[in-house]
Order: sequence, then structure tokens, then C-alpha cells
Amino acid sequence: MATIADWRTLAASKRESLAAKIPAEWRLPASIVSQINQSSNLCVLDIPKTCGILTEHELELTEKYDATALVDMIIKKETTSHEVTMAFCKRAAIAQQVTNCCTEIMFDEALKRAKECDSYLATNGVPMGPVHGLPISLKDSFNVKGTQTTIGYVSFITHPPAAQNSNLVEILFKQGAVFYVKTNLPQTMMAADSDNNVFGRTLNPNKLSLTAGGSTGGEAALLRMRGSVLGVGTDIAGSIRIPALCNGILGFKPTSGRIPFGGKVPPGRLGSPSSIIPVIGPEGHSIRDMELFMKTVIDTEPWDVDEGTLAVPWRNVSPISRPLRFGLIRADPKFPLHPSMQRTIQTAVAALETAGYSIIPIDDEIPSIYTTAVLAWKFFLLDPKKTPVEHINASGEPWVPSIASCSFPELADWQPSLDELFDMNVQRRKILKVYHDLVVKSQLDAILMPAYQATAVPHDTYGVPIYTILPNLLDFPAATIPFLKASKDLDKDFIQNGVTYVPTYDAEAVEGAPCAIQLVGKPMKDEELIRIMELVAATLNSLP
Amino acid sequence: MATIADWRTLAASKRESLAAKIPAEWRLPASIVSQINQSSNLCVLDIPKTCGILTEHELELTEKYDATALVDMIIKKETTSHEVTMAFCKRAAIAQQVTNCCTEIMFDEALKRAKECDSYLATNGVPMGPVHGLPISLKDSFNVKGTQTTIGYVSFITHPPAAQNSNLVEILFKQGAVFYVKTNLPQTMMAADSDNNVFGRTLNPNKLSLTAGGSTGGEAALLRMRGSVLGVGTDIAGSIRIPALCNGILGFKPTSGRIPFGGKVPPGRLGSPSSIIPVIGPEGHSIRDMELFMKTVIDTEPWDVDEGTLAVPWRNVSPISRPLRFGLIRADPKFPLHPSMQRTIQTAVAALETAGYSIIPIDDEIPSIYTTAVLAWKFFLLDPKKTPVEHINASGEPWVPSIASCSFPELADWQPSLDELFDMNVQRRKILKVYHDLVVKSQLDAILMPAYQATAVPHDTYGVPIYTILPNLLDFPAATIPFLKASKDLDKDFIQNGVTYVPTYDAEAVEGAPCAIQLVGKPMKDEELIRIMELVAATLNSLP
Repeated sequence: MATIADWRTLAASKRESLAAKIPAEWRLPASIVSQINQSSNLCVLDIPKTCGILTEHELELTEKYDATALVDMIIKKETTSHEVTMAFCKRAAIAQQVTNCCTEIMFDEALKRAKECDSYLATNGVPMGPVHGLPISLKDSFNVKGTQTTIGYVSFITHPPAAQNSNLVEILFKQGAVFYVKTNLPQTMMAADSDNNVFGRTLNPNKLSLTAGGSTGGEAALLRMRGSVLGVGTDIAGSIRIPALCNGILGFKPTSGRIPFGGKVPPGRLGSPSSIIPVIGPEGHSIRDMELFMKTVIDTEPWDVDEGTLAVPWRNVSPISRPLRFGLIRADPKFPLHPSMQRTIQTAVAALETAGYSIIPIDDEIPSIYTTAVLAWKFFLLDPKKTPVEHINASGEPWVPSIASCSFPELADWQPSLDELFDMNVQRRKILKVYHDLVVKSQLDAILMPAYQATAVPHDTYGVPIYTILPNLLDFPAATIPFLKASKDLDKDFIQNGVTYVPTYDAEAVEGAPCAIQLVGKPMKDEELIRIMELVAATLNSLP
Repeated sequence: MATIADWRTLAASKRESLAAKIPAEWRLPASIVSQINQSSNLCVLDIPKTCGILTEHELELTEKYDATALVDMIIKKETTSHEVTMAFCKRAAIAQQVTNCCTEIMFDEALKRAKECDSYLATNGVPMGPVHGLPISLKDSFNVKGTQTTIGYVSFITHPPAAQNSNLVEILFKQGAVFYVKTNLPQTMMAADSDNNVFGRTLNPNKLSLTAGGSTGGEAALLRMRGSVLGVGTDIAGSIRIPALCNGILGFKPTSGRIPFGGKVPPGRLGSPSSIIPVIGPEGHSIRDMELFMKTVIDTEPWDVDEGTLAVPWRNVSPISRPLRFGLIRADPKFPLHPSMQRTIQTAVAALETAGYSIIPIDDEIPSIYTTAVLAWKFFLLDPKKTPVEHINASGEPWVPSIASCSFPELADWQPSLDELFDMNVQRRKILKVYHDLVVKSQLDAILMPAYQATAVPHDTYGVPIYTILPNLLDFPAATIPFLKASKDLDKDFIQNGVTYVPTYDAEAVEGAPCAIQLVGKPMKDEELIRIMELVAATLNSLP
């Protein structure tokens, strides 16, 4: 067992080697860096534009286009992969200095790879694939050959670099992707603050004093800084959607089994008999980029690479022209919506109704969302060996504060058993049947619901993600779409009397934080959910 | 707790009420019935033809056509559902008297329903669906509204009749199916002899002294008697394919999640966290009938009815014209192939090679099939409550003999634990990866292997089904195709020296028993497996 002194030294050395990968000419001046801290209310979104490190053209490349457009421009030779990659490397370096979003920096490898992509196109006249030359950022838990995967455990710092790419990474690589950074996540990945003892905490670029969310929080902060145009995360309880909400970007959690999950580094023990299956999904800026990711991966027939992937092709679904029908979940009484989220949902509902869509409230027809979340959480605690604890204890590092706040008091002394697991599965199936039958009976295209009771909140106060975990328990695809922002002036009319907001509602603290809605689709109908997202985003006019 | 006297009386009353549902004019004479016993070597396949109960036309309807043809004839009004149903009711009544294959008889309801189908067609000019007017037989574990589901537990005899159809039954009903019998299965469904204390033992119509297999054994015996043209079974370790092999019919086990499984009566506890998922599939006489079943069910979008069904459409796959590539598993050393099965596999391989197909032996590249089967079996023993034992003990009935022979000595004292379940899942995943990678690397279209080391064997000697359980563990679709028959003359050249046959090879006892090959397809490629079955059956000329 390492001593505490050991782990601090180990973690510091890892951070130093990360910092050393940012070239001197991309370093921000002390005047900016000195302002960066987790108590600051600073918004750092403008720093890439004002710091002078990126050229005008690089600013344009990183800000003006989505991934689909950039690939198109690279293939048409209106730009090059090298130029695009250089721009995103620079911008990621800036994002890292102001939000602490990265865990691994691979700028040199990426620029070399980008040149290879450009040469390939020049030589062959055709692109490598649908993400030809595109820089794609990855959550740290993905293996990239030759790069470490510590996933924020100090005890993993001594691990050698990955010998193999994760299955998804290999697939994207063959389709032309350029990997240039991996991004930060919470200790154990089971918290909503991307904070760990190796890399420290990722800050929210909209307001540094707010959480960036988790577990794919580094990714979302990077994307919000436009230090990435397309990022890849994972989601078992909201890990794609929580940071997407907190930062103000798009997050898409597919049905399980559609995107190859094999070959990643898990935070816990392999072989869990949990009925909740972790999934990989994209975070980004445009809905067509969500489809670009899904279609690119699934069109490669990834089931030939990954034995856990369903051999089900991506279907090209036409735009939907009939009036959509949405089930509406307003709130769980235990976690009433903060005024900003209340206004967001009500505004969205009003806009969708005005557009001729049907909204069918279903709060009274579903079991308690809170109780459902408690059941779901049990599935994450099944390992009698408590492997994440072993990983923590192996270095002597302490627990980060958010782990304590992200837990259910009901489960403080809960011990898993095989016998109860049978009952848990029966309970899960009953809940699934309620939602399934509701969707069929009411002919719902999707369910509209909050992704969280609030916006991004101050660090370590997020608590349990009962609104995002629901689609994981059901294995329904789900997405968050940014919509509106917290505004104490507009929100004050939405304060409910006689309710207890958890966490505390502090209008000043969250002022300006992005809000979002969550859309939950039908299982295996990921394709349709993307079409629905397009219609909703257009109706709400919620994307740039 | 009931006394032993109670359970005998209860079971006898159930059998009597079943027997009473066979009209007097469909009863076989004592001269035939007196010959029926489980020690007899009698083949009873000709009795429907010779007993005089069916008209010539009824014999033709039951013998000459497959389900696809019968539906076509009904829709074209070349016959009626009532006429077809009457013929199969009569023939099922005969089958029941010589093989004891039925558990529930619904002749009156079926003939009434058949008339409704005929009226519907006459009135509407269109059929109800792709199985319009077709009699379909069901394994006892399916619920048919108004009929009991005892699944061979004495303690279930006091249960009321089913209040609802199983999801699959409801779907088939809406597509025009006529249900007229349910069929026998083993106590607990976890044995290869369809024997229980409620209904007794189903005999093999090819030779009464041989097992009819299990757990869908009543179904297969009924089909072999042509007392059914299309039957529905379930399979978790071979329960469709074992009886299909033993009786000489086709059996098809799809990938899990494709056919709705909800609303059946389970032999054990619901909510199992097992990685082996039970599936429903067809048994029958033609490969196009296997597709008729699969396509009919999946075209209804059964995921709207059943929350456990994958929303994945049935794909219409064109016939394959390129030369197929088969992986070949010859045998596990612990269960060497009996001479008849050895000859069957070798003959099939030779014929397929002659037809220009590639055969790639893979025995040396896979983990022990026996060890794999032991792992698989553990997944069936996960319930700490041992619910099947509770169901048995509730009536005081004893265990049937085959339960003892269908067990692994390694697991005699094995107790499940949540901790080991994690390791079991890791082991399963490793095995899955070996097969997955082999199939991809060697570009295999399917794996050809025995379904069992022998043909049907004498009652209670079948033992553990290591060759059929493999595709269940992998969740690969699999099918058995009848091919050749045991022949002591032809088989004697295939006797291997120095091996121990388990069970004992008794050439005389199995003389004339049907043989079969097993084809294992790729997961979710059920459609392609059917195309492959067609090519193999045509090459082997193995179907009538």
C-alpha cells in the first residue's frame, strides 16, 4: 500500500507531464491563469477569441462549423485535416488551461496523423471514411494505443500505456478520425463532478464556480469551449447527458448494444450481472453530428469487431412530417424543479404545443422517479468485492467530496445479494412495462422531461441524477438539447412556494447557467429519436 | 403440504379430464392401445394411416403439405380452416394415444375458431394474417386464455385457467392461428425426457422405447406423427433442438429478444440475472415454415406488445449464391460421437464439400465444449431459493428419474454466489469472444456440429446436452436439420476403438432412430441462417 505522500507525488508527476505537452507558445499569460479557480464566477468562453493564440481562420474553423461541415470541407479540400487539427489542438490547449478538462494530450501524434489523412486523400482521391481527418475527443476511459488510461485513479498512474485501441477507437480511426485529447472524469465515474485526485476538477467554462457535470465532464467543458467539435462519452446514469446539460451542448445516449463498448478501461469490476448496461454516445454541437457519429460507427458493421454489439444496421429514417406526440414528465415531488428548469420545461411545452405537437402529461401514470432511481442505483452496487474501493485504496488516495453527495441515504448500509438481484430484476421489468405500455397506449413518439431538477450547480452539490438515470434503467435512448439559460429576473416567477429545493436554489450562483430539456425515445429507435430531436430543436430554435 | 396420496389423485384427475376430451369416435382400439408402452420397440408412425379414423383427404391434408402450403390453400379456398383443423385434431388425438404428447386438448374451441376464420375470410375477402386458419400446437408453458398451464408440476394443477394469452399466443391469434393442443414437457423443463408426474412420459413415435427428447418433447412427437404442422417451443439449453433431433423434425432456435417471450409460465423464478436468455422458436417440417413463423411474428412489430422484444424488423434476405463457409466442430473428447452420429456428420461434410462449400475444422481453436457446458449450466442454478424445488415440494410429488441423469457431477454441491456470477460472466464473455473472432477471422457463414453425441437414446439416459447448450451460451441462433437414420449395418464402420460412449452405444436399441446435424448461425442473423439451412437441406436432400 502506498503512503499518502506517495500518491500526491505520483499524481503531481502525472499532471506535470500533461502540462508539459502544451507548447510554450500556446500557454496563456499569468494574467489570465491567475484568475482561474473553482470559486470564480468567471465565464471563460471568450478567452480563445481574446487570447491571441488562434489565428482568425483558426477561430473560424473551430467556431463556425459542425463536424459534418468540417469533414465536408476537408474532403472538398477547402481546408486540410492538418489545419483543422492544429486549430483544435490550440483551442483544446486553451480550454485545458481554463477548465482543466484534459487527461491526455496527443497533439504531436494528432498533427502527424492529420498529415497522413491529407496525404491519403491527395493520393487516393477518396477519404478514409465519413470522419476523414476530423479531430475527435475522447473521454479518458477509452484506450488509445500508446497513451495511458488512468481514469482518474492514482493507482492506475503506474499502468503502462494502452497496447490496443478500444474497439470504438479503432473503428473511428479506420474511418479517418484524428485523436488529439482525452478528457477528465470523476473518481470511480460514479459522480456528477468530474473531479479526481490525479487531474483535479474540471470547471464549467460558462461559470467556473459551477460543476462541469460528470462523468463525461471534461469532454463537455472542452466542447463548450469549442476545443472539440465532436466528443465521445459513456453513460450509465446520465454521464453523457449531465455534462451536456451543465455546459450547454448536445448529448446523445443510444440504446445499449448499438455502439461497440469493448476494450475500454472500466472503473469497477468486469462481468457485472447488472441489468443496466453502460453505453457509448456522442456529445457535440449539431444533431446531424450525432447522426454522423452513430451512422459512421454502425455502418462499419461493428459487430464484426465487438462481440457485444448487436448486428443491427443503422436505418436511414426520413424526416417525420406528422404531428409528434410527447409524453411529459414534469417532476418528482422529492426533487422539484428549480425555477430556471421549471421555466425551461414550461417554455418548451408551450412552444411544442404552439407548433401543433401533442403533449400528454404522464406524471400520474408512472411509478416514483425517485424510487426508480434508488432501484437503478442498486445495480451499480452489486460487486461484493467493491472493486472501485480497491482501486482507491491501492494508492491511499482519499475520496473526492462529490462521491458522498452522489449517493442515496436509503442505500448507505445496503449489501447486495443474489437473492435480491432476482427481485430487483422483477421490479425493473415492472417499471419497464409501465413505460412501454404507456408509450404504446398513448402512441408517444418520445417522452419530454427534465434532465435534472436544476442547471449546473456549485461544485459538489449536484447529488443523485434521478432524471437521467431513468432512461438507463429502461434502456431507452435519450438526449439532452440545450434550451434557455438561468435568469434570476425571468425565473423569479417560477419559484414554487412550500417546496424544498435540493440542492439549494441560489439564483445568483446559477445566473447564466445553461438549461436543457431531455428527450427519451423508444428502444432501438435511436434513428427516430434523432429525427425527433431535429424537429424539437427547430421548434425551440435552441441550437445556433 | 399435500400428501403423496393427494398428489397421485390430483394428477390422475388431470389426466382423466385430458383423456375425456378425446371424442369416443377418435379413440384407438384396445388392440393398438395395449401395445403402447415405454419398453416397446414399436414404431407408431403409420397408425394414423392404418387406424381408419382419418379420411383419405384428412390423411392427405396432414401429411402432404407444410404450413405455408396449407395457409395458401385455405386462403385460396381450396380447403377450409375447419377442414384442416378437424384433420389435425383427429391426428393429434391419435398421436396423444400412442405417444402421450399432449397436456391440454382444445378441440372444441379450435373447431369453433376455425369456423370463425373461415367466416372472416368469406366476409372480408382477406385473411386475418399470414397464418390464417392454421392449426398451431404449443408447448404447455404458453398461456392460452381459458386453459390451464400446469407445465407438469402437480402443485400447479390447482391453478385456475390462464386469464390471458401469452404475448406470442395473442400475436399468432391475431394473425389467424387456431390453437388446438398444448404439449408435454419435463418436470422443471430442465431435462431431456419429457416426463413429469402430471402427464407421465412422452414416447418417441419412431420407436416407443426411445426418448422423445425435451423440453419441447411433446411438441416434437406430435409433429413427427404429423398431428401438427407447426409447433412452438422454447429453448434455453436445447429444448427445441433436442426433441427435433430425437423425433426427426426441424427445430429453430432464434437469437434472444426476437420473438416475444412475455406472459409464459416459468418453471423457476422470474428475474434471473442469468446471461443465458430463454427463447421461443418453431419446430416443423419445412424450412420455409420456420421463416413463416419468424416473419409472421416479427412483422407484427411485437415489441409494441412485449417490452422484452428487440425492435428489429425481419429482413427479407435473398438466397445466397456464393459458396458457403462452415466451421466444423467434430466432437468433445468427453462425449465422443456414437457411430450413427459420426456417420451423419461425416456424410454431411462430404456432401457439402462435394457441393463446393468450404469446411473449416475448428475443434482445436475452441475451449472445451464440456467445460463450456458446465459454465452454462451454472447459470441455470443461480436461484438461492431453488424455486423449482419449492414447486415440486408443494405437492409432495417425487422427482422424475431423468432429472438425476441430466446434471453435471461437478455441480453436485455447487452453490451460486453473486461474487462468482461476476466471474462467470467474464468467462462467458471470453468464450463468446473466441467464437466471435473465429467466425469473423475465418469468414464463417455458420458452424456445423452435432446436436448431440447420439440419436434419441433409451428413456432417462440422454444426460447433459453439451452440444446444444453452446449456442445458448453464445446467444447465436441455431437449428437442427434431420439427416440419415441410425443403421447398425452402416454404422459399424464408424465405431471408434478405445472410446467410452456416454450414454452406452446400443446399436440394436437405436436402430432406425433419426439423426440430425446442427447449424449455428451468427447473432441477429436469423434470416441468413434460414437461407443457409435451405442450401444445406437441399445439398443433403434431407427433407421430404
